Amino acid sequence: MASNPSSTLLWGGRFTGRYCPVCCWDLLDLLTDQELGEITTGLEAVKKEWDDGKFVIHPAVDEDIHTANERRLAELIGPTIAGKLHTGRSRNEQIATDLRLWVRAQHDDLSEQLRAALSVCAARAKVEIDVLMPSYTHMQRAQPVRFSHWLLSHATYLMGDLQRLHGVRDRTNRCPLGVGALEGNPFGIDRTFLTNDLGFSSVHPNSLAAVGDPDFVAEILQWSSLRMVHLSRLSEDLIIYSTAEFGFVRVADAYSTGSSLMPQKKNPDSLELVRGKAGRVMGQASGFLSTLKSLPTAYNKDIQESVEPLLGCVRTVSHCLRITSGVLSTLQIDSEKMKAALTADMLATDVADYLVLKGVPFRQTHHIAGAVVRKAEEKGVSIAELELLDLKGISSQFEADIVDVFDFERSVERRSAQGGTSRNSVLEQISAIEAYLAGN
Amino acid sequence: MASNPSSTLLWGGRFTGRYCPVCCWDLLDLLTDQELGEITTGLEAVKKEWDDGKFVIHPAVDEDIHTANERRLAELIGPTIAGKLHTGRSRNEQIATDLRLWVRAQHDDLSEQLRAALSVCAARAKVEIDVLMPSYTHMQRAQPVRFSHWLLSHATYLMGDLQRLHGVRDRTNRCPLGVGALEGNPFGIDRTFLTNDLGFSSVHPNSLAAVGDPDFVAEILQWSSLRMVHLSRLSEDLIIYSTAEFGFVRVADAYSTGSSLMPQKKNPDSLELVRGKAGRVMGQASGFLSTLKSLPTAYNKDIQESVEPLLGCVRTVSHCLRITSGVLSTLQIDSEKMKAALTADMLATDVADYLVLKGVPFRQTHHIAGAVVRKAEEKGVSIAELELLDLKGISSQFEADIVDVFDFERSVERRSAQGGTSRNSVLEQISAIEAYLAGN
Amino acid sequence: MASNPSSTLLWGGRFTGRYCPVCCWDLLDLLTDQELGEITTGLEAVKKEWDDGKFVIHPAVDEDIHTANERRLAELIGPTIAGKLHTGRSRNEQIATDLRLWVRAQHDDLSEQLRAALSVCAARAKVEIDVLMPSYTHMQRAQPVRFSHWLLSHATYLMGDLQRLHGVRDRTNRCPLGVGALEGNPFGIDRTFLTNDLGFSSVHPNSLAAVGDPDFVAEILQWSSLRMVHLSRLSEDLIIYSTAEFGFVRVADAYSTGSSLMPQKKNPDSLELVRGKAGRVMGQASGFLSTLKSLPTAYNKDIQESVEPLLGCVRTVSHCLRITSGVLSTLQIDSEKMKAALTADMLATDVADYLVLKGVPFRQTHHIAGAVVRKAEEKGVSIAELELLDLKGISSQFEADIVDVFDFERSVERRSAQGGTSRNSVLEQISAIEAYLAGN
Amino acid sequence: MASNPSSTLLWGGRFTGRYCPVCCWDLLDLLTDQELGEITTGLEAVKKEWDDGKFVIHPAVDEDIHTANERRLAELIGPTIAGKLHTGRSRNEQIATDLRLWVRAQHDDLSEQLRAALSVCAARAKVEIDVLMPSYTHMQRAQPVRFSHWLLSHATYLMGDLQRLHGVRDRTNRCPLGVGALEGNPFGIDRTFLTNDLGFSSVHPNSLAAVGDPDFVAEILQWSSLRMVHLSRLSEDLIIYSTAEFGFVRVADAYSTGSSLMPQKKNPDSLELVRGKAGRVMGQASGFLSTLKSLPTAYNKDIQESVEPLLGCVRTVSHCLRITSGVLSTLQIDSEKMKAALTADMLATDVADYLVLKGVPFRQTHHIAGAVVRKAEEKGVSIAELELLDLKGISSQFEADIVDVFDFERSVERRSAQGGTSRNSVLEQISAIEAYLAGN
Repeated sequence: MASNPSSTLLWGGRFTGRYCPVCCWDLLDLLTDQELGEITTGLEAVKKEWDDGKFVIHPAVDEDIHTANERRLAELIGPTIAGKLHTGRSRNEQIATDLRLWVRAQHDDLSEQLRAALSVCAARAKVEIDVLMPSYTHMQRAQPVRFSHWLLSHATYLMGDLQRLHGVRDRTNRCPLGVGALEGNPFGIDRTFLTNDLGFSSVHPNSLAAVGDPDFVAEILQWSSLRMVHLSRLSEDLIIYSTAEFGFVRVADAYSTGSSLMPQKKNPDSLELVRGKAGRVMGQASGFLSTLKSLPTAYNKDIQESVEPLLGCVRTVSHCLRITSGVLSTLQIDSEKMKAALTADMLATDVADYLVLKGVPFRQTHHIAGAVVRKAEEKGVSIAELELLDLKGISSQFEADIVDVFDFERSVERRSAQGGTSRNSVLEQISAIEAYLAGN
Repeated sequence: MASNPSSTLLWGGRFTGRYCPVCCWDLLDLLTDQELGEITTGLEAVKKEWDDGKFVIHPAVDEDIHTANERRLAELIGPTIAGKLHTGRSRNEQIATDLRLWVRAQHDDLSEQLRAALSVCAARAKVEIDVLMPSYTHMQRAQPVRFSHWLLSHATYLMGDLQRLHGVRDRTNRCPLGVGALEGNPFGIDRTFLTNDLGFSSVHPNSLAAVGDPDFVAEILQWSSLRMVHLSRLSEDLIIYSTAEFGFVRVADAYSTGSSLMPQKKNPDSLELVRGKAGRVMGQASGFLSTLKSLPTAYNKDIQESVEPLLGCVRTVSHCLRITSGVLSTLQIDSEKMKAALTADMLATDVADYLVLKGVPFRQTHHIAGAVVRKAEEKGVSIAELELLDLKGISSQFEADIVDVFDFERSVERRSAQGGTSRNSVLEQISAIEAYLAGN
Repeated sequence: MASNPSSTLLWGGRFTGRYCPVCCWDLLDLLTDQELGEITTGLEAVKKEWDDGKFVIHPAVDEDIHTANERRLAELIGPTIAGKLHTGRSRNEQIATDLRLWVRAQHDDLSEQLRAALSVCAARAKVEIDVLMPSYTHMQRAQPVRFSHWLLSHATYLMGDLQRLHGVRDRTNRCPLGVGALEGNPFGIDRTFLTNDLGFSSVHPNSLAAVGDPDFVAEILQWSSLRMVHLSRLSEDLIIYSTAEFGFVRVADAYSTGSSLMPQKKNPDSLELVRGKAGRVMGQASGFLSTLKSLPTAYNKDIQESVEPLLGCVRTVSHCLRITSGVLSTLQIDSEKMKAALTADMLATDVADYLVLKGVPFRQTHHIAGAVVRKAEEKGVSIAELELLDLKGISSQFEADIVDVFDFERSVERRSAQGGTSRNSVLEQISAIEAYLAGN
Repeated sequence: MASNPSSTLLWGGRFTGRYCPVCCWDLLDLLTDQELGEITTGLEAVKKEWDDGKFVIHPAVDEDIHTANERRLAELIGPTIAGKLHTGRSRNEQIATDLRLWVRAQHDDLSEQLRAALSVCAARAKVEIDVLMPSYTHMQRAQPVRFSHWLLSHATYLMGDLQRLHGVRDRTNRCPLGVGALEGNPFGIDRTFLTNDLGFSSVHPNSLAAVGDPDFVAEILQWSSLRMVHLSRLSEDLIIYSTAEFGFVRVADAYSTGSSLMPQKKNPDSLELVRGKAGRVMGQASGFLSTLKSLPTAYNKDIQESVEPLLGCVRTVSHCLRITSGVLSTLQIDSEKMKAALTADMLATDVADYLVLKGVPFRQTHHIAGAVVRKAEEKGVSIAELELLDLKGISSQFEADIVDVFDFERSVERRSAQGGTSRNSVLEQISAIEAYLAGN
C-alpha cells in the first residue's frame, strides 16, 4: 500500500524518539509513558504488516485507513489503550497533514527531475556548441544561432519552474495538524512541536481554513500546467525538426516507434505523448479550480475531487520530465542539415549592423539592406554573391570588408552581449546553470 | 494614453540622468554626446505631446507606437539623428520590456489591494471578536466559532496570495532589453546597466527565450485565477449568510441593489459579480495556456493574444479586491441571528472531550456522546436539558461539572491551541497579520 | 475484458450472417468462401476464450489487441489463412470504428439515464403539486412558486440535453471503416455495406480526417460538461435547501452520511460529490480541446489522450445521473418549512398586478406597491395586515377585494400563462414530459 | 447603438402588423386600440432617433435601455400611456428574449461563413485536383495523397460544424417572452402568439428556468471552441507547409506580413492569429461554464458575465472564418515542391498491396515489403530502383508488373473506395459538398 498517501503520516519513521506526534498529550496526562510505549510498539507492528503486505483489511468494519489501523492496533494491544489513539486528532486534519507530506515529497522528486533535465541541457549544449542552425520567428527562418542557444532557451523555462516550485513547496509546507475537526484543538496541543517534528516550516494559522485548504493542490496543479506547456513547446520544436523536410534531429529508437513496413519512418511518439498530456494536465488544473470555485468555507465533500487529479498530475509530470531528459540526451543531431538550412538572406540584419558601425543612421541602414536583398533577387544570386560594385551602387559606405559579414559563424559571434548566441555568451549561460546546480 | 503600456518604457521618467537606456552605445561611439542630448530633448517633447493629449497619430504612416514616436522625433530634431533612435533595439525586446514594466507596476497595485483587504479583515475581526456563529461542514452546522475566526480563515488565503505574488513579481522582474530581435545584441550593449537602470532585479538569460517568453503573463493569470477562486468562496459564504433564512449579514446599500417594488429585498449584486467574474478570469488563464501550448520557440504572432487577457484580468482582480474590501468594511452583522443558530447538539464533541479529560479512551467517549444525543432525542429535549441522572445512566463518568460544557462561549474558549477559535488564538492571528502588514 | 472497447468491433455479434465486416473482399477474390468460413469459426473460438476469461496474452509478442487476436487465430487455424485477417484494414481505422461503436452505446445509456431522471421529476412534480415554496433571485426570496415548478425547471435542462445528445449521436454514428491507414482503401471495399452492416447511419467522407477525427470525443465531453453544470446547479439548490436554516428538504440516508457523534447531522455527500465532479468533467473537456488545438492533420499520437478522459467522463456522468435520480426520488420534503418561508412582502408584485387590472398604468402601480410596502414597514406590520384605509390613503383604486391578493395560493394560481407556476401550467409541463417520454 | 443587442427586440421591424409583441393585452382590455396605436407610433419615433444617432441618454435617470426608452416615449406621448409599456413584461424576460434574437442572427451569419468556407474548399479542391503531396502521420511522411484530399479533410469538419450549429440554433430559438420576472405571467398572455410573432420555433417551457437559462450562450461558446480548434489545426498545417523547409504553400501578401529588411520573409500572421485566438475562445467557453457551475436556480447577477464572452466570441469566430476563407482562396501552391517531397519508400504499402492481390496473405506481404525496403537501403537506392532480380530474391511473387506500383499517380488512384484519395473519390466528395450547399 506504498501508493496510499494516507499511510505516510503514521509510519514515516516518526516514532524513533520518545515522542510521537501525539506526545504533547503527555503534558496533559492524557497518555502515560507506558501507554505511549504500547501504542508506539503496536503501531510499529502494524506498520510492519503493511510493509510485508500482510495487513488484512476487513471491509465490513474498516471504514477507512484510520479505523483499519486502530482496529488492528486494538487487536494487538487491547481496545482500552488503542482507543486513545485518535485523542485530539480529527480525520480531517490528519488527511490534510498526510496529503501535504506526500505532496512535499513529490516536490522533491519534481525538483530532482527538473535538475536532471537542466543538467542534460547544459551538458548537451556544451558538446554541440559548434553546431549552427536557423532560428525561426513565425516558423520562418530568421537568424543563424547556435543549436546550444536554442537548447538553452528551453533551459530558461526549466530554471524558472524550479524557482517557482520552491515557492510552491514553501506554501505547501505548513502544518495543519492540531486544528481539530475545524474549530481548533481543545487539549492545548503544542502545534509548534508537531510542526517541527514533522519537518514543516510553519504552522497553518487558522483551523477553519486548514481542514479544507486546497491551495497546495491548486498550486501544484497550476505549476504542472505551465511546466507541461513548456514541455509541449520543446516537443513541438523537436517534432518539427525531426520531419523529413527539416531533418535537423532524429529521436532515438528508445523514444520513437517505427514500422516494419516503412523502417525509415521514426515516429516521435514519446514527444507527441508529452505534448498531448500537456492538455490533460491543463484540464486537471482548470477542472480543479472549477471544483473549488464558490465552495463554502471549511470542509465540503467536493474537496475529495482533489485527490485523483493530484496523484495523476504529479505522476504524469514526473514521467514526462524523465522522458524529455531521455529524448534530449539521446537525440541524434544532423548538423549538416542544419547548416544547409542557413541562407545568405538571413544576414540582411548583419548588413544593416555593418552600416550602423560605419555611422549610418539605423533607419537608413534598414532601407539600404532591403535594397541589397532586392538587388540580389533581381540578379538571381544570394546577397553574398553580389559584387562590391553592386553594393556601392546602393550605398557608398560599403567597403571590401563587407565580405566578413557574409559568414554565418561571424554573424553568430557578433551577438556577444549577455544572453546572445556567441560562443562566450552561450558558455556563460552553461556556467550559470552549472553553478546553480552545484550550489543548490 | 496612460493606458497604453507601450509608452511606459520610453517615457517613464528614465531620462533624468546622463544616460538613457540606449546610452551604452556611447561606449561604441554609436552616439555622440550631442546626438544623445538632442534625442533626449526631442523625446521629452514628444512625451509632453502625449501627456497633453496633443500627439497626432498619422494612421497612413505610423505602423505602431515605435514608428509613430520616431516619425514625430524626426519632425522635431531631423531624420538623421532621429534615425539612430532604434539602433540596437528591436521592437520585440522593447515590447517585452515594456509589458514587464507595466505588469510589475500592476503587481504593486495588487499587493496594495491585498494588504488593504487583509487590513480590513484584521480590523473587523478585532471589533467583532465577541460574536459567535455556527461553523459549517457540508453546509451543515458543525461547531460554534467566532465570526472573527471565520473572517480570518479568508485572511489566510489573502496572506498566501500575497506571498505568492512576491515570487511572481521576482520572476517577472527580469530584463529582456538588449537581446536583439531574437539572437542577441551585436553592439556589445551592457545589459547589466540596462537592467539596473530600469530597476529590474536580474538579466533575462537567453535571447531566444526572452523575446517570446510569456511566463510572466501566464503566472499573473494563474495567480489571478486562484485569487478569484478565493474571492468567489468568500462571496458564496456572504451570499448564503445574507439570505433571509440565514440572516447573519446584510450587504450595505452601496454594494447591493434593491427594488422599488420590494424595498426589503437587498440583492448582493456586488458579491455575485465578483463570484461570476472568477469564471471569466479562470477562463482567461486557461485560454492563454491553450494559446501557448505547443507553440514553437521564439516569437509567434499567437503571443499577441497575451495582451488582452492580461490587461483585462489584472483590472478585474484589482476591482474585485477593492469591492470585496468595501463589502467587508461596511457589512452589517446580525449577531443575534448568528447566536440563535447555535444549538446544543453542536456541543456533542465537547461532551466527548469532557470525557477524554476524565480519562475515558477517545473511541469510547465518541460512543457515549452519541448515546447522549440519542437520549435527548428520545426525551424530546436538547442535550443541555438532560438531567445528570440521565447522563450518569449512560456513563458513570458524568459529574455535575458537565453543565460547564453546555455553554457556547466556553466551548469556543476551549479551542485555545494555536489557530483555534478561542479569543486568544484569534487575537494572535490578528496580531500576526498586523505585524506582517507593518513589517512589509 | 468487457471494458476494453477495442474488442467490441471484432466480437459484437457481427458474424451471424454469411458476411463479416471484411466480406466484400470476396468480390475481389481476396478471400474464398472456405477461408471466410475458417476465419469466422476461428474468431468465434477466440471470442469465446475472451468471454470465458481464458484468453492468454503473450506480452512478449502481442503488441496490441489486434496482433494478439491474429496470433491466437493463427494458432487455431494456421498462419496462412489467419494472415489474411487484416487485409485491407488498418489499425487506425479499426480503433476509430471501435471507439465510435463504444461511444454510441454509451449515448444510449446516457439517454436512458436522462429519461429516467426526467421521469422522476415528472412523477415527483405530480405528487408534490400542492407544495408552495419561495422562489429566489440573487438567493433572496422573490415570489411564491410551486415546489413542482422548481423541480420542472431542472427538467427543462434534462430535456434540452436529451435533444442535444441525439445530435451528438448522429454525428458520432459515421463509419470510418474502409479508409485504410489514412489515404483510402485500395481494394474497392464497399463502405456502404460496412456502414449498414455495423448499424452506422452514414459513411465518414474523407479518409485523412477519418483516422484521426476526434470530434465525436470532443462532442461527448462538451455535452458532459454542460450536463454536469446542470447537475451541479441542482445539487447546489438541494444542498442549500437542506441546511438547518432553510430546512426545505432532507436527503435520504442512502445518499447522505451521518456522524456517530452528531446523529442529527445529515451531510449531503452525494450531492457534494456530483457538484465536485462537475469540475472534473469540465476539466476533461477543456483539457482534451487543448490537446487537439493546433494538432496537424491525420493521426498524431496525442490523440491517444482521448481514451482516458472519454472512458472516465462517460462513466462519471452516468453515475451522477443515477445518483441524482436516486436523491430526487427519495428526497424528504418539509412543506411546512417551505410554507413558513413565504412572507407577505413577496406579494408586492401581486399588488401592482391588481392595480394594473384596475387600469392603472404599470409604471404607476409599481410606485404605489412600493409605497404600500413602506407603509407596512412604518407600521411594523406585514402588507397583508394593512387596513383598507391605509391602502386607500396611498391609492384610491384599492378596494375590499384587495384581500384576495394576500393569499399565496391565489398568487401562484394567477401565473396561469404557459410555463407559469399555476397548477394547470405545471400539469401541462408534466404532461409534455410524459408525452415526450412515451413518444420517444 | 447598433451593437447593443438590447435594442433588437423593440425595434426589429416587428411593428409592421396591427399587433406589437404586447398586443395580447388587448384581449384583457389592458390596452385599447388607441393606446396601442399611440405606443406603436411613439416607439417608431424613438427607434428613428436611435437609427439617426439622435437619441439622448440621460445618465442621471436612465437606469438602462428599458427605462431610457420608456422615459423618451413618455416625453413623446405622455406618461399615462407610456407608463403601460411594460405591463406584463419583466426586464428579465425581455433581456432573455433579446439576447436569443441576437444570437439567432449570429447563427445565421456563422452559417453563412461556414458555407462560404466550404465553398472555397470545394472550388479550390476542384482546381488543384492534379496536385499530389505527401500525407503525414506523426508529422512523418506517410503516403502520397491529392492536395485536394487534404483540403477536403478540413471541409469534413466544416460540414460537421454546420450540422451541429443547426441543432444549437434550434435550442436557442425558444421563446422566453411571457414568463414574468420568474414565476409566470398573471395576465393570461398568449405565449404561442408571441413565439410565432417573433419567429421563434417553440415556447420556453418553464418560467423559473427561462429567466436565467444560459444554455444557448453555453452552447454557442462550446460550438465556437470546437470550430476554433478546427481552424487552429488548419492554420497549423498551413504554417508548417509555408516554412522554407516544406515550401508547399505561400500565404498571399494580404494575409501575411513581410519585413523591409528581409523581403523574402512572409510571416503568416493571419494564420498565427487564428491559431492563437482559438485559445481565447476556448477560455471564454470554459470560463463561462465555471461561472455557471453551482449557480442556484433562477436569476443571479453572475449571469451577466455571459454577455461579454458571448459578443466577443461570436465576433472572433466570424472574423476567423472570413480570414480563413480569404487565406485559402488566395493561397499560392507550389506543386513542384510537394511532388519533390514524395519519395519511393512511401510506396512500401503499395508493394504489400500488390502482393495481396497476388494471393499472398496480408501478414506475409507486410514482412516482404519490409525486406524490400531494407534491401534498397543496403544497395543505397530507392525501392523503385531495385532490379526485378533483387525483388524476386525476396519473394518469387514479384513480376515485371511491379514497375506499375512505383508510380505516385497510380498509387493515389488505387485508393478508389469512397472517401479515398483517387480522383473520382475526391470528385465525389466535392460533389457532395456542392449538393449540400445547393440544397440548404
